[in-house]
Formats: sequence, structure tokens, C-alpha cells
Amino acid sequence: MGLSRREFSKLGAMGLAGRMLPPVGAEAQGDDRRVGYAVIGLGRIADHFLRGVQQSSKSKITGLVSGHRDKAERIAAQYGVPKSSIYSYDDMDKFRDNKTIDAVYVALPNSMHAEYTIRSAKAGKHVLCEKPMSISVSEAEAMIAACKAANVKLMIAYRLHYEPTTLKAIRMIREGTVGTVQSIISTNGFNIKQGEWRTNKALAGGGPLLDMGIYSLNAARYLTGEEPVSFKAYNSTIDHDGRFDTVEENTSWTMKFPSGILASCSTSYGASMPGFYRVYGSKGWLEVGSFGYQGIRLQASYQSGASGGPNTEIDETNQEKDPMQFTREADHLSECVLRNQTPRSSGEEGLRDMEYIEKIYASA
Amino acid sequence: MGLSRREFSKLGAMGLAGRMLPPVGAEAQGDDRRVGYAVIGLGRIADHFLRGVQQSSKSKITGLVSGHRDKAERIAAQYGVPKSSIYSYDDMDKFRDNKTIDAVYVALPNSMHAEYTIRSAKAGKHVLCEKPMSISVSEAEAMIAACKAANVKLMIAYRLHYEPTTLKAIRMIREGTVGTVQSIISTNGFNIKQGEWRTNKALAGGGPLLDMGIYSLNAARYLTGEEPVSFKAYNSTIDHDGRFDTVEENTSWTMKFPSGILASCSTSYGASMPGFYRVYGSKGWLEVGSFGYQGIRLQASYQSGASGGPNTEIDETNQEKDPMQFTREADHLSECVLRNQTPRSSGEEGLRDMEYIEKIYASA
Repeated sequence: MGLSRREFSKLGAMGLAGRMLPPVGAEAQGDDRRVGYAVIGLGRIADHFLRGVQQSSKSKITGLVSGHRDKAERIAAQYGVPKSSIYSYDDMDKFRDNKTIDAVYVALPNSMHAEYTIRSAKAGKHVLCEKPMSISVSEAEAMIAACKAANVKLMIAYRLHYEPTTLKAIRMIREGTVGTVQSIISTNGFNIKQGEWRTNKALAGGGPLLDMGIYSLNAARYLTGEEPVSFKAYNSTIDHDGRFDTVEENTSWTMKFPSGILASCSTSYGASMPGFYRVYGSKGWLEVGSFGYQGIRLQASYQSGASGGPNTEIDETNQEKDPMQFTREADHLSECVLRNQTPRSSGEEGLRDMEYIEKIYASA
Repeated sequence: MGLSRREFSKLGAMGLAGRMLPPVGAEAQGDDRRVGYAVIGLGRIADHFLRGVQQSSKSKITGLVSGHRDKAERIAAQYGVPKSSIYSYDDMDKFRDNKTIDAVYVALPNSMHAEYTIRSAKAGKHVLCEKPMSISVSEAEAMIAACKAANVKLMIAYRLHYEPTTLKAIRMIREGTVGTVQSIISTNGFNIKQGEWRTNKALAGGGPLLDMGIYSLNAARYLTGEEPVSFKAYNSTIDHDGRFDTVEENTSWTMKFPSGILASCSTSYGASMPGFYRVYGSKGWLEVGSFGYQGIRLQASYQSGASGGPNTEIDETNQEKDPMQFTREADHLSECVLRNQTPRSSGEEGLRDMEYIEKIYASA
């Protein structure tokens, strides 16, 4: 099965054209200094990142930005960050002069991603920003422009782009293992608690589509190697218990890709909805789940060889433990910084998802 | 969780308001005679039906209608049908005077369902018609009218309406086992061979939606107990190898139900796509697959009791062997005939699916 120019280009963007996996850990390859990160926002995901960087030989934690000084001092002590490298949101811009901080990890609510990315860029720091990169296309464009103007790298934290099982699934599909792909399904959601910032539209920018559905959206793109050309969607809210006063509870949408592949995705803040995708091809299917921080499982069933040939069954789980995904993610940006390369999950990659999210909402 | 009037009515239609399972087999309950069936069309699915009725104590095979006299005589000998009860498509109407034939099983290509249902009704025979009941709403309406005028029963062969695991899944959802349902996903398809009548629009009436997607469509209805109010769909054809000159290769669609439940379904004639559905609720999820003739598997994972309570995991498979589903299906119509009741999967039930299929195509 030949690859179109677009597919090959996507393959390159995913790092599949060259070696299979991003380098991790001990192989310093001539660069023996570690890239220093300031973590902006000390919530749940920041904890994974902190632990991920702690076990890295390419990256280290050199600063913290938080609205809670006590919490920041406690974490600083834990990770060996000097008190002088703790900043508040107000005085964060001073880290411009802190030479130990090369880059930032933006782990704030979605609506704050743009402001803190742009301020970090203006302070001369490279940016690793959590997904969704922003709450609008225009913000995403401003973030890309700011990083370009400041000559700093911008990477969006699509950690699964660096996860071995995900990369294996993509490679299998590109190699035609399940034949000609026709259809993809994917879900990702959870039953959210009262009072989370994720259900406050001013902070989240939208409902589960931005926070959870983006995994399915992005997966359909890296699985097909194509960009979707059309979207049809529904929103719905079933529970009227105060959680969904400003954002919708459910979104389901279908995307059509240029080749004709159809991808049906569902997300929810009202249901227990484990993350997964399944790719259906002429010779069989392939499934990966969850989208979590560890235990990514690959299952597949396909006819190997000619029609009527024996069936191959695959069921394997990545045994790497959390926070290895965050180590890989940070180290990719660190490598890009050290080698002056463009991150695979660039700002432009994040921008495309924002464009599609706006189209999905427009249809819904 | 209370049931709306619509839900309760649906529950009744599925036979869940009363006893759990349709009676099968030995319990003759005062009716010791078996209902005689003529099978119209001796293809693959007819073989399952013949074997299903053979093991029944309520139903028996008393006639065959086929274009292949040799084949019909061979099957007649196998099932104890006298040669005088073998008919061709041309002279079938003569079975009006054959008192051993109470009902027919229409197992022809989709486009022939209407004609043979109506001719059978006019000959005074009850009708069990394969799904989809027709290739258009207008045909379905004509079939219902013909059976009403002739005062015969019309049942559409939704065999899973009588399958214990499916009924258990429905009951679990109604009882709130997985909490408030938010979202459903379902797939059903296969990679079709060249030359099947199913890819000839004149015979099939459409692509995989009519033949395979109808399982997902119907499942979403019996799972929710609601009727969908809105549809968004895509068709696509990827393979241009002669199979899809008159019908599309893939259809994916989303349905919105009055409660807000969203159901995303995919079907294909180009991919290996095992049939299944998964229902996502506030407390967990439930999955049933396949839609095949045996081995229907129920899996579920849900939080029992109050929030934070322990998780219950279910994984069980109906061990009944093919053709038991067909025994149950035939016996339901036989009971309705003997007791003068309306089949649960009535013509009206089939008509609704035809209405929705037309809406899905209109959106695609």
C-alpha cells in the first residue's frame, strides 16, 4: 500500500519516518546538560510532570509558578528547587533573568494557556503547553506568533505522540496490517464531580470535547495521517444538577477524511467512558486503550497474508509505569531545545485541533 | 429511577413488563399442535431457521418455496416436507389451500420482502419477515396494510428481541444498573465478497445500513426505550473494485434521543467490524456483542451502591448454540398465532427502522 504525500508528511511529523521511538533517558549523545523547566500551575497533572522529569536525564525542574506559596515551597523542597526560583502568577515574568529556567510547562486551566504561554515566550522561555492549547483558534494563533517572535519552541503536550504502544499502532496501520482502513470509533469521558474548573466555561472554554474528546479527535488524525474535511456533531445535557450550567454534558461527532474514512467519536462529563479507539480495516481491526498515564493496551485481530489466511491476534500492554509518558514528553522538548529542532507536536498541531473543535461546535 | 410512559410502553413492547423470557420448547400450555411454516427462499439464513424450527415443539416446517426444485426437494426430504408442499415463486400463491401451512418465513433479498409478504398475506398466511422488512417506508406501510386486511400476523425477524442476554442487558439498563445513560456506541459490518446480492441496490435497497447497520439502529432504540428524533450521517466509498458501484461502502451516523442520549453507530461492507454496542452511564458501562447467531457476550463494569462503592464486573456469554435464536423467534410468532396476540417485533416496529433509515440516508 503506497503512501500519499500527505500521509508521508504526517508520518514524518509523528517521527515514524525515521527511528521508531523518541530517545529517553541515559543516552545523552554529547549534550550532558539538562533542560530546566518551570512548572506553571501545581495541580494534578503537574504532579505527574514533576515526577516524570525527576526520573529524566535530559530535563530537570528548576522553577515553580503558583498562587499558593506554601504548596510551592513544599514541592520546591521535594524537587530541589531553590526558593528564589518560586514565582507567583503576578511576578512570574521576572523569571526572564533566571538562567536556570530554559522552558516552562503550562499546566493551568485551558483559558489561561494563551496568556501564560505568551508571557513565558516574552520572557524568553520555551513552552510546553497542556492540551487543548487554548480555548479558541485566535488564541492559538496568537500563541504561535508570540513564540515565533521570541524565537522559542512551542510544544503542545500530546503525550501519546511519544508513547510506544500508540506509535506501534500507528505504524501497524501505515504498514497495512489491518488492510484498507474504513472506519474508526473512539470514546473518552468520565462522570465529573461538582465544582471542577472543567465545568466552568470561563476557565475550560467548553465541555468535555476540549478536555477529553480532544484525545479522540487527535487520535483519528494520527491514525489516518489525514486531516478531516467535514464534521457533524450533537451536544446534549441530560443532568440538570448544577454541573452543566455553562458547558454541555455530552458531545458526539463524526468526521469525514479525504480518503473516505469515517471517524465516530463520543465524549462525556456525565458517564463512565473509558478512553479507547478501534480502527476497522479490510483485513481486521486494531484497538488501543486507555488514554491514561500507564497501561496502554493494544489489541488487534487481522488476517495475515492472503484472503482466507490465518488470523493473528495481538493483546499486549505497555508495562511502563506512570510518569514515564511525562518523561518522554519533556525529553522530546528538551532534545528539540538542545538540537534546535521543531517539536513533533508543535503549536501548529495544536492549532489544527482547535480549528476542528470550533467546527464540531459549529455543527452541534 | 422512574420510567416515563414511553419507556414503560417500550418495556411492554419488549416483553419486559411481564415475564423475562419468551417461552420456548416443551411447555405447550394447552396448545398441542405446532404452527406450520413455509420457508420462502432457501439461502444461508433459511438454513438456520430450518434447523431452529426442527428443534421446536411449537413450530414445524410444512412447506418450501424456491426457484431451485432440486435444492427444495433435497431440503424437503431432510425436514419431512411432502413434495406436494414445495412451491416455485410463480405458483406459491396456491399454498392458500394448503392447510398444513399456517405461516411463512420470508428469507429473500430485501427488495422482495414486500411482494412476498403481501402475497402470503393474501393467501391467508401469517408472516415472519426478515429485516430490513422492506427497502422503503411506503413498502413497509403496504405490508402492514396487507396483513391487517387479511387478518394475519406480521412479525419482523428481530431475533435478538428474544435472546436472553440481550433482554438481560435491557433490563439492567432499565433498572439503572449503569446509572443515567448518556451515550451509546455500536458497530456492525463485514468485508463483503464480490458478487453478493447485498451490494446490488436493486435487490438490497441500499448498502450496509439496511443489512448490518439496522442492528445498531434497532439496538439503540431497545436500549434507550426511546425513539430517535434527529439524525446526522455520512456515507463513504473507499474501494473502487466493482463491489460498490450501486451501494455505498460505509455509513456512520449519530442519533439524538428525546432524553438527550446520543448514539453513534458505524457500519461497513469494506471492513472487518464485529457487531457490538456499549452503553455509557453515570455509574458505569455495559457492552453486548456480537449480533451473531450464538455466543452473545455481556460485559459490564459499574459502581454498585453509593458513589465510591465497590465496582462490579460482569463477563458472561450465552452458551446456547445456533440455531436456538431462530427457535425462540419462530416460537414467538407461533405463540402469537395460537393465542391471537400481536408479535412484539411487529410490522410497526420494522416500519420505524425503515423511517429512520430513510432519515439517515437523507442526512448522508
